[in-house]
Amino acid sequence: MNAPLPNDLLPHHERRPVPAVMLQALRDRFGERCSTATAVREQHGRDESPFPVTPPEVVVFCESTEEVAFVVSQAAAHAVPVIPFGVGSSLEGHLLAVQGGVSIDLSRMTAVVRVNAEDLTVTVQAGVTREQLNREVKDLGLFFPIDPGANASLGGMAATRASGTNAVRYGTMRENVLGLTVVTASGEVIHTGTRAKKSSAGYDLTRLFVGSEGTLGVMTEVTLKLYPLPEAVSAAVCHFATVDGAVNATIQTIQMGVPIARCELLDANAVRYVNAQSKLGLREQPLLLMEFHGSDAGVKEQAELVQAITAELGGEDFQWASTPEERTRLWTARHKAYFAGMQANPGCRTVTTDTCVPISHLAEILQSSIDEADACGLPYYIVGHVGDGNFHLAYLVKEGDAEQRAVAEQLSMQMVQRAIALEGTCTGEHGIGLHKMGFLVDEAGAGAVAVMREIKRALDPKNIMNPGKIFAL
Amino acid sequence: MNAPLPNDLLPHHERRPVPAVMLQALRDRFGERCSTATAVREQHGRDESPFPVTPPEVVVFCESTEEVAFVVSQAAAHAVPVIPFGVGSSLEGHLLAVQGGVSIDLSRMTAVVRVNAEDLTVTVQAGVTREQLNREVKDLGLFFPIDPGANASLGGMAATRASGTNAVRYGTMRENVLGLTVVTASGEVIHTGTRAKKSSAGYDLTRLFVGSEGTLGVMTEVTLKLYPLPEAVSAAVCHFATVDGAVNATIQTIQMGVPIARCELLDANAVRYVNAQSKLGLREQPLLLMEFHGSDAGVKEQAELVQAITAELGGEDFQWASTPEERTRLWTARHKAYFAGMQANPGCRTVTTDTCVPISHLAEILQSSIDEADACGLPYYIVGHVGDGNFHLAYLVKEGDAEQRAVAEQLSMQMVQRAIALEGTCTGEHGIGLHKMGFLVDEAGAGAVAVMREIKRALDPKNIMNPGKIFAL
Repeated sequence: MNAPLPNDLLPHHERRPVPAVMLQALRDRFGERCSTATAVREQHGRDESPFPVTPPEVVVFCESTEEVAFVVSQAAAHAVPVIPFGVGSSLEGHLLAVQGGVSIDLSRMTAVVRVNAEDLTVTVQAGVTREQLNREVKDLGLFFPIDPGANASLGGMAATRASGTNAVRYGTMRENVLGLTVVTASGEVIHTGTRAKKSSAGYDLTRLFVGSEGTLGVMTEVTLKLYPLPEAVSAAVCHFATVDGAVNATIQTIQMGVPIARCELLDANAVRYVNAQSKLGLREQPLLLMEFHGSDAGVKEQAELVQAITAELGGEDFQWASTPEERTRLWTARHKAYFAGMQANPGCRTVTTDTCVPISHLAEILQSSIDEADACGLPYYIVGHVGDGNFHLAYLVKEGDAEQRAVAEQLSMQMVQRAIALEGTCTGEHGIGLHKMGFLVDEAGAGAVAVMREIKRALDPKNIMNPGKIFAL
Repeated sequence: MNAPLPNDLLPHHERRPVPAVMLQALRDRFGERCSTATAVREQHGRDESPFPVTPPEVVVFCESTEEVAFVVSQAAAHAVPVIPFGVGSSLEGHLLAVQGGVSIDLSRMTAVVRVNAEDLTVTVQAGVTREQLNREVKDLGLFFPIDPGANASLGGMAATRASGTNAVRYGTMRENVLGLTVVTASGEVIHTGTRAKKSSAGYDLTRLFVGSEGTLGVMTEVTLKLYPLPEAVSAAVCHFATVDGAVNATIQTIQMGVPIARCELLDANAVRYVNAQSKLGLREQPLLLMEFHGSDAGVKEQAELVQAITAELGGEDFQWASTPEERTRLWTARHKAYFAGMQANPGCRTVTTDTCVPISHLAEILQSSIDEADACGLPYYIVGHVGDGNFHLAYLVKEGDAEQRAVAEQLSMQMVQRAIALEGTCTGEHGIGLHKMGFLVDEAGAGAVAVMREIKRALDPKNIMNPGKIFAL
């Protein structure tokens, strides 16, 4: 087992300077949208991971595919690293400029290029966030379901193959990206996919770029599937004496083919934190937070079935969130669990895991991880997209306390080992970034990682696209 | 627009001989499972396309991943082409040994390696066919939905990114392959994906190999999603005065988010052919053949909704196929439409298209294609997975009649042009093979095809994996 990269220690890389002639070319073209100000650079040299800030040499705020192509062409000509930047919400060190170079900020590319309501598709620029997209298509009776905790950009979500609470029903970015506009490492613009729902035409470049974390090109436009807003939505919470009970109810629900839209676990600690932050007054014991989408009758039927399953498996106090306001309050609290955990533990940093296992192994891995976490004495909580077998165990460690951090990292590593042994993955939705490069080799094997590396070398021979991420070259 | 390859004319390739030392090594290892008999070679030098038989030099019947790795290692050492062969049902010339070499027959790799009913996953060897798989998991209350017309092997289905009548609800091979065992071009064995439902761990090699038509490696095992057999299944047929009416009813159904499981169009000609073959007694006018999966109440609700939609849009004579026998009869007839067309037109070959467009453009492309087909005077029929925007217009041309074939090819080409102009694809489910290499460039653009080519060169530097397919190197 490869250890994860300790998260105060960046791997050593030579920084590759931006030559004066290139800097001048960027300044000439972008004026004030090309910045070398320390504050701007530092803001672009970090993400939500605990790695130390590692700024790029220059930040360019692009507003079009053509502008991105110009920057990448310059970078290619001078063999300078390029790091695409959305809203900075990634969690594994994806955005750190370990070799220096140019951060391409895409956050001003916020045009919804085209909505095709009749085809349930939309094309957006990469800087559009998931919340903006949903605001813009709501009046058409449509929505986009993928919802990582942060209000991430759709380019960033595609780059990390993100998912969230709705994935159990609607899939992840893997299933929901139809096509891309990509600036390749040579600065050329290509289009992948079409608006057709399926295709057997050649290699699936769309899904190669989705999840490639900026290492193969810069995605500037994303074509996505949309869904009709369900006729009826209903949410419920159900408490359990143990995490085990909640997981067993989930497994039964999935195995019976109930098309549940969301099925989230919060352990007692997570409930306590979100209660404190959002004043929810939930019973502080493990709970499932569920949502059902469909017709009026369909939602009722699903919910009754799940209510019967939970009752049989020790669920207590099954309660409906009957109004949209109540639902929104619950889901907002769930999305803020990460911040609630930090708020409840002032001066702490979060060390979080992101494993995903076949659902039959979920109870087992959760129980052993809970036993270890309880024994170590650090504050922790668990939230999980348990319908998919994906969960996050988050330790809260005192900022600067090396011993606590070492304990948390060690336990996290053991959990990943366990997940991989159980035919699972080291990351369900956050990506590899810097932190999990060792785990990727454990999971995929040296042979598969060698194939990834060959693809990278072929498509980015100068290693300028977000170098040093996913695997060492 | 690039013309398709006329299907009696193979592109010129130098054949690459199998050296005596390699042939001996194969004979030593495989004994009678290594054949150079003309009949065996000819059987492996063709598929369901009209291209002339182009046999490999030798056929090896492999029974394990290790055996495949041995053959590929030999081929790599001697720079000899390798063509994976399942049941031979592909349609675009995928299996023709245009540069000679070794056909690796996987049809004896028929082990269902592992069923994990509780996780709804199964791992099969590549030679397992879809019908075998469904027989083996039926008693567990499970099924695998992807159903191309032929009883194809799951390796072949993965290689062509196949789909079929259930894709509108369950997706294609793209969505349903979780992981693969692949023998790479160097003869190394790698594993892609895990049994976890989702992952953000590195490049999506699974989906790169799915649809790569044997040009990047040989898939020897496939891990697939399974689904619980629905509690209730109900099928219906509904006739329409025009294809347009049937398509509009389909569009409305999809846009309303009805989770219809199958939604197939047959034009009047197709109905006539399947009537003749299967004695169905259907009214010989355009019809939709639909199926609904769910709970008893859910199926009833879906069906009533669709019945109301069809009634509003000119549907006539909505009829239930209430018994399982009746359903099976209808769907079997649908699956045999290809053969019914040939049976009704003795001495004819089928020239079929496989375009897929955004559903809003479906009525438009179908109508103009029908107008052209009617005007040309050749027998033709249309069957379509219209819920996905995918359809096949098949011309029946007299064997050896160059003029008829030229007409059919010209009209097919015009239809593909139209599909691409309407943001669709030249192939929804059959693949590129030899026939559609020109169309791929039209659809994806030279830049995207260049990226595919770079991947191919990186992963198969000696160009031994099914060379000459998808794109010219």
